[in-house]
Amino acid sequence: MDFKIKNKEGQARTGEIITEHGILETPNFIPVATQATVKALSSETLSKIGIQAVLCNTYHLYLRPGEELIQKLGGLHKFMGWHKPMFTDSGGFQVFSLAEISKIDDDKVVFRSHLDKSKHELTPEKSIEIQEKLGADIIFTLDECIPFESDYETAKKSVERTHKWAEQCLKAHKTNQALFGIIQGGKFEDLRRQSAKFISSLNFPGYGLGSIFGEPKEETLKVIQYMMEELPEDKPKHLLGIGAVEDIFNGVELGVDTFDCVLPTRLARAGYIFTSEGNLKDKWRYRITNAQYTGDQGPLDKNCKCDVCKNYSKAYLRHLFKTNELLAYSLATEHNLWFFNNLMKEIREAISQQKFQELKKKWLA
Amino acid sequence: MDFKIKNKEGQARTGEIITEHGILETPNFIPVATQATVKALSSETLSKIGIQAVLCNTYHLYLRPGEELIQKLGGLHKFMGWHKPMFTDSGGFQVFSLAEISKIDDDKVVFRSHLDKSKHELTPEKSIEIQEKLGADIIFTLDECIPFESDYETAKKSVERTHKWAEQCLKAHKTNQALFGIIQGGKFEDLRRQSAKFISSLNFPGYGLGSIFGEPKEETLKVIQYMMEELPEDKPKHLLGIGAVEDIFNGVELGVDTFDCVLPTRLARAGYIFTSEGNLKDKWRYRITNAQYTGDQGPLDKNCKCDVCKNYSKAYLRHLFKTNELLAYSLATEHNLWFFNNLMKEIREAISQQKFQELKKKWLA
Repeated sequence: MDFKIKNKEGQARTGEIITEHGILETPNFIPVATQATVKALSSETLSKIGIQAVLCNTYHLYLRPGEELIQKLGGLHKFMGWHKPMFTDSGGFQVFSLAEISKIDDDKVVFRSHLDKSKHELTPEKSIEIQEKLGADIIFTLDECIPFESDYETAKKSVERTHKWAEQCLKAHKTNQALFGIIQGGKFEDLRRQSAKFISSLNFPGYGLGSIFGEPKEETLKVIQYMMEELPEDKPKHLLGIGAVEDIFNGVELGVDTFDCVLPTRLARAGYIFTSEGNLKDKWRYRITNAQYTGDQGPLDKNCKCDVCKNYSKAYLRHLFKTNELLAYSLATEHNLWFFNNLMKEIREAISQQKFQELKKKWLA
Repeated sequence: MDFKIKNKEGQARTGEIITEHGILETPNFIPVATQATVKALSSETLSKIGIQAVLCNTYHLYLRPGEELIQKLGGLHKFMGWHKPMFTDSGGFQVFSLAEISKIDDDKVVFRSHLDKSKHELTPEKSIEIQEKLGADIIFTLDECIPFESDYETAKKSVERTHKWAEQCLKAHKTNQALFGIIQGGKFEDLRRQSAKFISSLNFPGYGLGSIFGEPKEETLKVIQYMMEELPEDKPKHLLGIGAVEDIFNGVELGVDTFDCVLPTRLARAGYIFTSEGNLKDKWRYRITNAQYTGDQGPLDKNCKCDVCKNYSKAYLRHLFKTNELLAYSLATEHNLWFFNNLMKEIREAISQQKFQELKKKWLA
């Protein structure tokens, strides 16, 4: 993997992550393909939208169908028919959020599957082994994910464990996949700076900024800034699990290169449609099942150029949701991903023209 | 609407149904778009597969979102983004199979919706009014649908009612949509012949062959033959609700031009994959969730040229079904419809080369 910075405006920058499976222009938004599919969309539709990379979940694929099978079938790219850049996460986040943890210490996490309560162990070495078998272009070190609100002692312990695991991951890593080191530290400035310094000392080709789900937003932004100040400029930074519109603008402003989040896809399936006609207050989205759209002939977003907006009306989408038609989920997902993909394109173009601040003001007004 | 016969081999023929929305080559298979969507597929995907027409259900669209709304939004073609030939049925079949019938006489059917038990009435005039508002290219007269096994008295009464309703539909019909007259008569030769004669005397531009779901197949075939012998050769004939592979071959042999059926789409969602590698005994299908496909790298059907077979393996499809991923339903549906669409293309080509009997033997061997 190679990374080139192309344009800068303040800390915001455009660049290219160059992988064996092609180029990922940055800043960019990476849709989540949890179980080797972005829910409700085929790889061809993702390509049609212009999506440049997806992120798959190691935890889910480890459980079903298993990394051994995927390796035997030629790897995750081939398995899911996605021949462009791909990330996998370490499995940590899902183990900590979905599974039932039986035991955790510095050596391993013992957990029971959320599917059938079967018992499993995850270690740094195991996470790397699974991710190597899956074969994504960019993989992550195993980290201990803690709530943003955790107290200092908890955060400190988790940073230490995360650092130990990062070293073990690095040692275990044998392929030429790019292994990104994850930074933790809760909401604490000294821990975040210390973690960023330590992780950057290990010479990873890129970084994941972990566990920044919190309130107030000002505090999470400060935490991102602490880490960014300690990390080398010339390496790509991925903000894990974050994807609200304002978070993307704020992250890009601080120099973040890539984001992944289930927000646009999960909300699509719940009938929430993103729109450039929205604003900070309505979070650029509305619920298509609302009665007001019953006879609305207009497209989902009057500024949108996606195929869904070209071919269908709000009234049709509402009908599909109200009648529980499967097509509702794929069309809403296609539109929402187009919205995010197009937003990132606008952001890249703005940075290259030194107009990012202008664009940010326009959107967050 | 215009209909041209192009080639003949015995009673089998190729032709073209020419509508305001383009040409439908016959013989052809018409996927069912129950609620203004072929379940799990967009209109663009249908076009990509090569589907030339869809059939929507009047009963469902009357209940949701209502024919008034669809008319206000510019008609069903525009509503669902399908700008090619389209059929609607009369609503009768669903009223008789899904709704709870409170009362039926020669004037009307009173029924309660399967959705909310609300009370509705369907008359021949109402069926035509709804279908005119929906705006499909080919519409059908309201018929009384009875089981194939019904006794003579029941079948006789239902034929009489169906004939009365056909006359009323014809009288009520005001647009230039092509109204096809439906023939009934249960399993009885005299009733089927009588019905075919009567309906053809009314000078409809085409015919629907109704309620031929029965056993043994030899008997249903005879019933189709009785009707075909009484109907004018130069008009198109649609076999309602039929779509098994052998039924298509047998129907085409008797001169049937079009078929509609939920079989390929409904079975797709249940994980049944059609394949040219199959045979009469396995009904040309297999269950993709079977354990034997866990690690199968091959395409769904090794002779198939659809995008699903090009891009994905049996193992991937099985994974999608086993993990309840929405993509499972759209990929399986896309493949199954390609299978039927390609089968019809093979049949048309065979007839045009006087090789239909040869093709039929090859398939049904």
